Amino acid sequence: MKTLMAEVNISEGRNQELIDAVKQVLMEKGDMTLIDMNSDKDHNRTVFTYLGEPEDVLEATKRLAAKAIELIDMTKHNGSHPRNGAVDVVPFIPVRDVTTEEALVIARKFGEFVGSLGVPVYYYEEAATKPERQNLVNIRKGQYEALPEKMTKEEWKPDEGPFKFVPKSGATVTGVRFPLVAFNVNLMTEDMEIGKKIVKAVRGATGGYQCVRAIALPISEKKMVQVSMNLINYQKTPIHRVFETIKSEAAAHGVGVSDCELVGPVPLMALEEVLRFYLRVHNFSMEQIY
Amino acid sequence: MKTLMAEVNISEGRNQELIDAVKQVLMEKGDMTLIDMNSDKDHNRTVFTYLGEPEDVLEATKRLAAKAIELIDMTKHNGSHPRNGAVDVVPFIPVRDVTTEEALVIARKFGEFVGSLGVPVYYYEEAATKPERQNLVNIRKGQYEALPEKMTKEEWKPDEGPFKFVPKSGATVTGVRFPLVAFNVNLMTEDMEIGKKIVKAVRGATGGYQCVRAIALPISEKKMVQVSMNLINYQKTPIHRVFETIKSEAAAHGVGVSDCELVGPVPLMALEEVLRFYLRVHNFSMEQIY
Repeated sequence: MKTLMAEVNISEGRNQELIDAVKQVLMEKGDMTLIDMNSDKDHNRTVFTYLGEPEDVLEATKRLAAKAIELIDMTKHNGSHPRNGAVDVVPFIPVRDVTTEEALVIARKFGEFVGSLGVPVYYYEEAATKPERQNLVNIRKGQYEALPEKMTKEEWKPDEGPFKFVPKSGATVTGVRFPLVAFNVNLMTEDMEIGKKIVKAVRGATGGYQCVRAIALPISEKKMVQVSMNLINYQKTPIHRVFETIKSEAAAHGVGVSDCELVGPVPLMALEEVLRFYLRVHNFSMEQIY
Repeated sequence: MKTLMAEVNISEGRNQELIDAVKQVLMEKGDMTLIDMNSDKDHNRTVFTYLGEPEDVLEATKRLAAKAIELIDMTKHNGSHPRNGAVDVVPFIPVRDVTTEEALVIARKFGEFVGSLGVPVYYYEEAATKPERQNLVNIRKGQYEALPEKMTKEEWKPDEGPFKFVPKSGATVTGVRFPLVAFNVNLMTEDMEIGKKIVKAVRGATGGYQCVRAIALPISEKKMVQVSMNLINYQKTPIHRVFETIKSEAAAHGVGVSDCELVGPVPLMALEEVLRFYLRVHNFSMEQIY
């Protein structure tokens, strides 16, 4: 069954009545599986993470967005997390049997819908229309407060919706990205220099694997160094390849791997790759798992 | 969510109307996921494989058995597959978050129910009340035709139901077993002697792993030898342990492993063990997979 995930960030984390009203429209058809919902009062932000069949996810996300845009007034919003709009960021994430292209169709339909509600929309990540719009940090620079000026510059013309500052709703960013996999490797050494060398070997920014973000951290209670990673696209850079590289780089310093951690939710598709590699079951299909 | 599987073998594989009537009562509550249904005309036998929450599986299996016992007349049955009764064999198989003990409670309740319908019942595998009743082949020796004589012998007194031959329904065998995992390893050699040595090293019957059944087969189109296995309890003998042993035994003959096959359905729990081993993620939990 095709499964798409959405991770919707709205700019309200304090008013429980409002948050409940938004959740209610999201869930009203009974076709979404809510896998996480997290409100942060300091951030003043709520993240809804849910999944379902792609077209159903689109409809549920439209309902959610319409309700949040109706109820949230950005002229009164404050919070410690960067934000641009009432419906701030909406990534659509392929989880099972959904191609990047299929997810892009959903993200574009969603963007058109939010635009039709009179809210400026920017596409990011895989959906970006310009290289400088790929990165959310770039689009959100200066936050909501910078939008009045940005909306006068041709380079910030929205991809959908009006080319003007909309005080009540700000702007929405939507697009397609892959599920993050948080993977930590604990090295049997306290030597941070070795940890840093390994990080340098595997992270994209320093010549390693394109889709790996990594840092080295001391784990003092274990007397170890941890290579802490986010794998941002497990299809391009699978877990096992990164792990095997870390093992061989560590071995070159005479250091072993103690153990590893997969943190938080992990898509089955990412694990399937790992099984194929280690068990050499090249024809194994997810359909066989029950 | 607790998930139990049942794999019900009934002695009818030709009369489609009867098979449909049995399927209908099985599925009527809409709470069972039918993962396979296979009727064989030569065997004159149908196997229903389905899963759900344990108590729901019990109720669905009671409905199925009552209907099959009502409609099937063993005095008229012939087919090439060994059988004892109308409802021939009913293994309950723990799939997710179900212990052997919990599955045993379900199997016993089912056995009592079939007994209350006036059909003799034997418990087998994990549910067996005597060592000689563990193995289905033992219980089914001489098949339906041997039941009139067996039912006069104290050693074949049923665990539930009447101690007499019931011509219309024969006898039913039920119990608890683990899901089989069918795992094949292809060796980069055509030398069957090496294949046989490896089989001897890993199979329970010749001093290997207790829960492994194995044979060596020539795969002539690939010019390879295959070690073809059934792992009958992946919790006691996990896939990766058998695979690593085969790799090292083969290496001692200078032979590598080309690739492997996982055949048919594989429980996620069996794969979780493999992931824990190869990625060293000892705290990884199935709940994290989406």
